[in-house]
Order: sequence, then C-alpha cells, then structure tokens
Amino acid sequence: MNRRDFIQKTSLAATVTGILPKVQAPTQKPASRVRLGFIGVGLRGQSHLQQALYRKDVDVTAICDIDPSAVNTARKMITQAGKKEPAVYAKGPEDFANMVKRDDLDGVIIATPWEWHVPMTIATMKAGKYAAVEVSATVTLQESWDLVDTFEQTGSHCMILENVCYRRDVMAIMNMVRQGIFGEMLYAHCGYQHDLRGIKLNNGKSNALGVEFGEKGYSEAKWRTQHSVDRNGDIYPTHGLGPVAHWLDINRGNRMMYLTSMSTKSRGLHKYIVDHGGQNHPNAKVKFALGDIVTTNIQCHNGENIVLVHDTNSPRPYSLGFRAQGTEGIWMNDGHTIYLEGISPKEHIAEPDAAYLAKYDHPLWKKYEKEAENAGHGGIDYFIFRGFVEAIKNKVAPPIDVYDAAAWSAVSPLSELSISRGSSPVEIPDFTRGKWRSNKRIFGLNDEY
Amino acid sequence: MNRRDFIQKTSLAATVTGILPKVQAPTQKPASRVRLGFIGVGLRGQSHLQQALYRKDVDVTAICDIDPSAVNTARKMITQAGKKEPAVYAKGPEDFANMVKRDDLDGVIIATPWEWHVPMTIATMKAGKYAAVEVSATVTLQESWDLVDTFEQTGSHCMILENVCYRRDVMAIMNMVRQGIFGEMLYAHCGYQHDLRGIKLNNGKSNALGVEFGEKGYSEAKWRTQHSVDRNGDIYPTHGLGPVAHWLDINRGNRMMYLTSMSTKSRGLHKYIVDHGGQNHPNAKVKFALGDIVTTNIQCHNGENIVLVHDTNSPRPYSLGFRAQGTEGIWMNDGHTIYLEGISPKEHIAEPDAAYLAKYDHPLWKKYEKEAENAGHGGIDYFIFRGFVEAIKNKVAPPIDVYDAAAWSAVSPLSELSISRGSSPVEIPDFTRGKWRSNKRIFGLNDEY
Repeated sequence: MNRRDFIQKTSLAATVTGILPKVQAPTQKPASRVRLGFIGVGLRGQSHLQQALYRKDVDVTAICDIDPSAVNTARKMITQAGKKEPAVYAKGPEDFANMVKRDDLDGVIIATPWEWHVPMTIATMKAGKYAAVEVSATVTLQESWDLVDTFEQTGSHCMILENVCYRRDVMAIMNMVRQGIFGEMLYAHCGYQHDLRGIKLNNGKSNALGVEFGEKGYSEAKWRTQHSVDRNGDIYPTHGLGPVAHWLDINRGNRMMYLTSMSTKSRGLHKYIVDHGGQNHPNAKVKFALGDIVTTNIQCHNGENIVLVHDTNSPRPYSLGFRAQGTEGIWMNDGHTIYLEGISPKEHIAEPDAAYLAKYDHPLWKKYEKEAENAGHGGIDYFIFRGFVEAIKNKVAPPIDVYDAAAWSAVSPLSELSISRGSSPVEIPDFTRGKWRSNKRIFGLNDEY
Repeated sequence: MNRRDFIQKTSLAATVTGILPKVQAPTQKPASRVRLGFIGVGLRGQSHLQQALYRKDVDVTAICDIDPSAVNTARKMITQAGKKEPAVYAKGPEDFANMVKRDDLDGVIIATPWEWHVPMTIATMKAGKYAAVEVSATVTLQESWDLVDTFEQTGSHCMILENVCYRRDVMAIMNMVRQGIFGEMLYAHCGYQHDLRGIKLNNGKSNALGVEFGEKGYSEAKWRTQHSVDRNGDIYPTHGLGPVAHWLDINRGNRMMYLTSMSTKSRGLHKYIVDHGGQNHPNAKVKFALGDIVTTNIQCHNGENIVLVHDTNSPRPYSLGFRAQGTEGIWMNDGHTIYLEGISPKEHIAEPDAAYLAKYDHPLWKKYEKEAENAGHGGIDYFIFRGFVEAIKNKVAPPIDVYDAAAWSAVSPLSELSISRGSSPVEIPDFTRGKWRSNKRIFGLNDEY
C-alpha cells in the first residue's frame, strides 16, 4: 500500500468513526476566548491584526516576522489597543517553527510571501493548531497535496483566507443560486482584474511611484514581482474562484475537472519601467514571463463552465468581473445588472441589481453589518476573520477548508502548465479523493459565520 | 506541383501583375447603376432587398427562392417600390445555378440556410459575379478553403455580410484602436449572446410561442435549429469576431493562430420544449448537442487573445459582449464604460463611453448617418449593403473579403473540433497562405464605404 492509499483509507476510516477530521457539530462547550499568533505582520498581516484587536474574544499571544519595522508596527498596534505585549519571533526565516509550538496558541494567521505559505501552514497544523493562510494558499500542485495530506494525517484544520467569499453581493448571489432563482447553473465569469503595476514596482521606500522590485523594492514588490518574472499563468486565482466555487458547490457535489489557459503577450510591466524609469534603467532589461491577461476556462463535473481572468499589468478599473448565469437568469457585476426570466418586468431587458442584492442579502450580513462596517476594510475582512475565530471557539471545521485551499490554489500551477503546453487541457486533481460526491456544503449556511 | 501550390503560385504572380485579384484602386470609371440578384428572399433576404429598393442606383433583376410565399412577398416589395418586375427562379433547390448565369447581373446577395451558402457563393463567383453571402459564410473547414480557392481561380469577389462590423460603437472603437488610443492591443472579448429560443422553436406558423422546428417549424426554425441538435461549438461566431478582427488587423499584419473551446451542458432548448410543450411533446425527446454556452479562446500571431462567447439557448438580454483592451486603456460594451490612462480624469475609475464614441465617430457614420437611419435596421444593414454595391460600382475588392469570410467562419467547425477533443487546442489555418504578412487594411479606410 503506498502512502496516498494509506492516507486515503485511514482518512476514510477516521471520517466514519468521527474522530478525524473534526466535524461541523461541536463536541464541547465553545471556548470563550481564542489565542492567536501571527506569522507575517506586514501590510496584510497588520490588516488581520486590526481585526483581532477589534474583537473582545481574541488574544494575540505571539507575532513573527523577519522585518523589524513590521514587528515594531505590529507591537505598537497591540499595546496601543491596551492588549498584552506579544511574544516576538524574529530570529530569521525559520523562527516561525518555534512560535507555532507554543502552548498558548489556538490558531495561527499566515500572511507571508506565497512560497512560505505551505511550510508555515504545515508546521502550524503539525503543531496541532488551526491554520489560516492567505491567498493563494499554494504555489505548486505538490503543495496542494501536501496541505491535504497534512490535514488528513493531523486532523488540524486549514482555512484559506479568501475574503472575497464574504463580499456582500457575491453572498447575496450565492443565496439566490441556492434558492434556485437562476435555475440550474451554467456559467460563471470571474477573475482578478486589478492594476498592480504600482504594487509590483515602486520607489523602494513606499508604494510611491518607482520602478524597483526585489531587493530594492518595498513591501510586496520585494517578493511578489518575481512571480511575474518567472511564471506565465493565473498566478492569483482565488479572489474570483472562491465565490464561484461556492455558487457551484465545488468539492461538495461538484468538482473542477480540467482547464485550459491562454495568455496575451507581456507588455505592461516593461512599459511601466520604461515610462517611469527610462530605457536605461537596469529593470528595463528584465524579461517578464507573465502575459498581461491570462484567461482560464474550467470545465466542472456538473457541466458548468468557469471563465477566470488574471489582468494585473494594465491600466484599468478594479473589477473581479463576476457573472453568474443559469437556465433562468444572469447577473453581471460589471454594469450591476440582472435579468431573471419571468421575474424581470421587461422581456430580455436587464434591470439594476440593487433591489435583488438587498432582497437576498445573506443572513450573516444582515446580522453583523454594523460590526463589519466598524471593523473597516469594507467588511469582508471582518467576516473571514470571524469565520476562523468562531470555528476555533466552537472546535469545528472552518467554513472554508483545506480542500478549498488546495483546489482553488492549484488552478495557478495548472494554468501555467496549460500555457506552457500551448493551451492544452490539463486535468485538475480531485483533492477530496472522491469525497466531493457526498461532502455537504459548509460555507454561508447560517447567520453565525 | 499540387493544386494548392499551383493556385498559390499563380495567385501570387497574378497579384504582382495586377490582373488577379482585383485591387483596391479602380481601373475604370465607376458604373452608375448596379444590377443585383437575390438568392433567398425569406426574412433576412427581404431585409437586404429593402436596402436595395431604398437605393436609387440599384436594380433588382432576379430573385430566387424555393418558398412561394417568400417569392410573392419579395415581388410585391419590388413592384410596390415602383421597380420593374424581377425574373423569378423557384424551380427547386438548384435553380439558383440558372439565375447566377444571367447576363444582366453584377452581383448576387445570398441569404439562405447556412449549408447552402458555399455552393451558391461558388456558383456566383464562377459565373463572374460579385457574391455577398450572409453569416456564417461557411459551415466546414473545407468550405472555407473552397471559397478562397474559387476566388483565387476566378478573381470574382466574395464579401461576407457581417453587418456588425458597421455598428457605430465598434467602428468608433476601431477608429480609436487605429489611432493608438488604447496603446498596443492585448485583448478582446466578444460573442453572440442572444436568446434565440423563440427563433429556434416556434408554433410553425410564425415566430409566436411554440416548440416546433424542422419540417413543422417556421422560418429559421426549419433549418437553423437542426444545427443545435447536431453540433456542439460556436456555431455563429462572426457577429463578435468580425469587428474584433478589424480592431486586431486579422489577415492584415496579424492572424488567428489557434483556439480552444469549452462548452457547458445543454439545457435551455430541452427545458423550453418541456416548459411550453410538456414532457410528452415529441420534441421533448430530442437530444441537443449544442452546449448552452460555448467559450472560445483565440491566440493571435501578434500576441493578442480573443475570448468569444456563444450563448443562444438561455433567457438573457441581447449583448455581443464587446471588450477592447490595450496597454493604455479598456472599453466595455456591457456597462458602456471606458478607461484611458492619462486621459480619464480619475485614476482607475471608468467613465461613461458616450463622449468618446461621439468624438471618435467613424467618418462613414458622420457622412451617411441620415441615409443609414432612413434605411432602417439601425443603420448597419445600410452600410454593409452600401459596401457591397460601391465595390461593384467601382470595380474593386469589397471592404470585407473572402479571406475574412473564410477565417471568421472557420472558427465554427474548429471550435466543434476542440470541444470534441476535450478542449484541445486546434490550429487555425492561414487562409491567406502567408499574404497576411503584407496585406494592408481594407475596411473602414475612409468615408466612402
């Protein structure tokens, strides 16, 4: 018996006996407080830290970062909020391994460069803590399997922090999909269409105008830009895929079967460097592998198609480009329109979507609107953080799980593979190993989290 | 030397000596009148006939159809317009072959079921007349080659009547693309998104509600619906592709290299039959091959990607879904928005497109707006018809040519092939046999046609 078979069999047995993985129903009285550690307290980590400080039921026990200024800022945020000074782990890139072993931690938030996500998440899970990892969770296909295998070995949960799943409009649309308002689902369009040129390239001191990256770059430009040098594929797929996966019950009665990806030429980043740094700037010689626009088409088991766009190197308005379409209607985020057969008053004429989004507002948003708004960042960061914390308190699986993290993130390396093979179709592994057929929905089930 | 090589060589030689194919510069004084024949005077043919009757420089010499009621309606239209009674060819499905041989014809308009387009077009070209053929021009890949070969053998022109090429907004966008307003082009989205359920299925007497097609259907339902039974692919690609091909200079400095297609499950037509005809209607047993939504991704030689959607079996607003994107801006038809770097007043915020569409209104529309509006059908049928007639009068190549007809239409069988191979990439032939490298633009060059 090989390792995969062994894990699969033991995991199935575990599910049957109810020991492993932890199931949705709480087995004990909920904890009143949750103790969290943070790996990565740069800009994104600080944003999560702010959510932690906003909550009265969360203690921040420890923080970890290799950047002293990030550590200082985070410490100040914590003490200025009147909380206890956290333990600090800043002794080199592997110090996180020491932090996750602490006894006074229930969960760990990981907001670090992508290539560190999986080592840190696995260390957290192996230490018996809940792991929350930023998007994308994984960079390679093997890493997606590693997350799943670690979960099935340890029973420790891993939640991918895909905050867009909680966007108010996409949750209202999910509500409508589940109530059958769109009929049988056929099609979804989504993506990450966000001009990141000023993030990938900056002046090295702030996100102010500049053409530096890598060693000389600031914040994400230090590491994120290199992915655009090395890789051609949808390198940031989950903001679009997460919400769509919930509409289509991916991993729960449905799954992604195969994909094709195609990419345009690469122009935007080079042009930005030349426009703002001149032809003679050393970075004008850098060759970027990433095509400016990458389109990925995904075939689902139940016959729906997903079209996913990655578009981050060009001047454009921010848009995740959502479209939900079924046999009885269509919603489009761009233009904010909806058309529902037999409901919309004029045949074949779209309506503004606002009244529908209000009518089908998700119970979670209805209940926690005020808290979400007070917590800042448009509310979605409040909800994704809340989901993680409440899962820990209730000792249950989080509302977005390791199979979601594995499958959504895997689209990234698979799209690279497809492009490298001239847009050939590439199989998407079934990370649930068949359990998608019987797995039930876990996201957005009620007004709790 | 095989036939293709022979044709290629002789054609190249002909181009050099200027005999064949006819070139853009007129060789004689323009004719003052044009004599046209019509093959197919059903609903679409009548629409073109109306354009012919609107013009003072066109005589309708002959009409051909196997449907007596269509012939009667067309004759009445002609005589009621005060024109001479046309010769009628209605003796069976091959009678068109007799019509095209008449001496008093300069050009022939072909608006018949798709599978008849190529035999009729080839007969017209071989008889030395200009052929204008409705969309799609061809159904199979071989037919696309046959059109090209016939043109190169005879020197007779073939124009595909892709009226959307003349839509005012897409011509303004073309104008902007050619002036570099979007920078270097990267991406285009387009398609045919039109609820045709009431066209593909009707009561057999009119387009009124019903679930009949084939023998028992009315008008296009008689033949068009069968394509949805037999074929899974983008079976109607040119309304989207035509305008985009002009933006991207396809066949003229650029070409389509390969494509992938993916399709959703097929639900819409069966559901419509059951909803309106009941489970026990015989057509409820029909299996439709056509997926409700087919998405085709096209890689272009110059590095642009085209995403093309076919969506005709679901309730939805009409939209051709145009998007034009370059290194310096993006236009989207859905939502009517535009964003141009350094021009739009707020960074990353889209503007309404109306002012730009007005500013870059194409000279042709500026000059002939009144005539186009008077001629009805939103103007685009006026312009496509004008293009054909003016080419004949000036004895030059039409503004949309046989290579356009061949390449745009070929996406249809190639998308079927890709889907049948699990979305594998499929090469798109170079119908220009290398001439795309030096061919110059022919469409929308001035304010004439």
